[in-house]
Amino acid sequence: MNKQQLTENIKRKKTFLCVGLDTDLKKIPEHLLKEEDPMFAFNKAIIDATADYCIAYKPNLAFYESAGLQGWQAFEKTVRYIREDYPDQFIIADAKRGDIGNTSMMYARTFFEELDVDAVTVAPYMGEDSVTPFLGYQDKWVILLALTSNKGSNDFQLVKDEQGEMLFEKVLRTSRRWADDSNMMYVVGATQGKMFTEIRKIVPDHFLLVPGIGAQGGSLSEVCIYGINKSCGLIVNSSRAIIYADKTENFAQAAKEEARRVQSEMAAELAKAGIV
Amino acid sequence: MNKQQLTENIKRKKTFLCVGLDTDLKKIPEHLLKEEDPMFAFNKAIIDATADYCIAYKPNLAFYESAGLQGWQAFEKTVRYIREDYPDQFIIADAKRGDIGNTSMMYARTFFEELDVDAVTVAPYMGEDSVTPFLGYQDKWVILLALTSNKGSNDFQLVKDEQGEMLFEKVLRTSRRWADDSNMMYVVGATQGKMFTEIRKIVPDHFLLVPGIGAQGGSLSEVCIYGINKSCGLIVNSSRAIIYADKTENFAQAAKEEARRVQSEMAAELAKAGIV
Repeated sequence: MNKQQLTENIKRKKTFLCVGLDTDLKKIPEHLLKEEDPMFAFNKAIIDATADYCIAYKPNLAFYESAGLQGWQAFEKTVRYIREDYPDQFIIADAKRGDIGNTSMMYARTFFEELDVDAVTVAPYMGEDSVTPFLGYQDKWVILLALTSNKGSNDFQLVKDEQGEMLFEKVLRTSRRWADDSNMMYVVGATQGKMFTEIRKIVPDHFLLVPGIGAQGGSLSEVCIYGINKSCGLIVNSSRAIIYADKTENFAQAAKEEARRVQSEMAAELAKAGIV
Repeated sequence: MNKQQLTENIKRKKTFLCVGLDTDLKKIPEHLLKEEDPMFAFNKAIIDATADYCIAYKPNLAFYESAGLQGWQAFEKTVRYIREDYPDQFIIADAKRGDIGNTSMMYARTFFEELDVDAVTVAPYMGEDSVTPFLGYQDKWVILLALTSNKGSNDFQLVKDEQGEMLFEKVLRTSRRWADDSNMMYVVGATQGKMFTEIRKIVPDHFLLVPGIGAQGGSLSEVCIYGINKSCGLIVNSSRAIIYADKTENFAQAAKEEARRVQSEMAAELAKAGIV
């Protein structure tokens, strides 16, 4: 999916919500454990319930890997299901990969050729040749970790260099030489509030993938005040608050209501910014 | 496996070689493609041929993920095979994972509970809470990326902070607060030569996992001059130069000869350092 298509979907559906499919066998409703493929059954129900209110899905690979072979199968089936039944959804493999060139190439093949997702999250620590193998695919995206939503983001990402530039700023500035806003986005946590102002100075036009609202406590309105740009430029993720809104047989309906609630907040933010 | 056991294996076998199982269906000998599980068949032959000359195996997950379900199956079978038939081998899942706390926890479960490997490589960018979930397991190890072997290591790892400390040094120094040399090691590329001197000032007693000899061009003797410590403290990896030493039906024999050649160099280095 290219940037124009993504932006059109946001305007048409009045939402920039991404639903994080952090599907944990220990947390899904018990009655689903009788299904042949409980993880996929859960995902399918969540997707069917929420697709009207979001423009992206983000399965986090950790949750699928931890279920072994069955988990990988559920991951593949989920991606295929979204592709076929909801072709206007942007699919993000939240994998946080990054390795030496020939190895990153293998990961890129996996995610973009075998699985056909739209975007992969990539960790920047190993630098240019760990990231560029993901960039050779038409209408596919790298989403580079910049300023993450967790407490540990303080340990290294905020360290200032000799010129006073923080590491995440250096990641933004340096990686702009590798790709532009047509195939690179950045992860910026919703918990980082006013940092969005600084970030928008460096990457005014790029899309930002924003985790951290919902269970992690970030504020959607604060993200919008400091982070929204003229074509929205935000994909805001919520995982646990939506998919585990309810743990009974009513889980899909509860997920739908929570997604709809977030969507209506987002519609208001888009209107406020003059985008819709 | 604990540090004492690992050190004893090194002294007994006079080697600190790790064989990297970067098993690529496009590179393994053609006759193996007829096997039911070609990746596992290749690994099994390589392991049987090289086990006398190494103390560790390091499958890189990228290569298995890129083969989808079959790849995961091959990965699991490989780990199980080493565990059962070569219990004195240290198994490193080269995964370069790292995510927010609850997600890193899922990865830790996968690698240490489901798969029972000895160590996982972890990327430091997201800081403490992305690393510590891997540290709660007896005799299991985090191998944190510090100074990698690739060209892109220059982009961020060598950036100096306001006190003149480079990022990889900060990673070493900061992470020493999270764990000690009984459950943390560091990745330092063999291509980084004299940097080992600086690194040994910060982490004199830790094991270092050293990729980059062989196909990547790093020098074993240079690594030893600057990096060896009193209990060796090095696990030096070679992947392609060993496993693809020959691409005919003779591949396992060729891998054995290359592993034996490296082992004999290592035996000489251990003698030179007075360790054996």
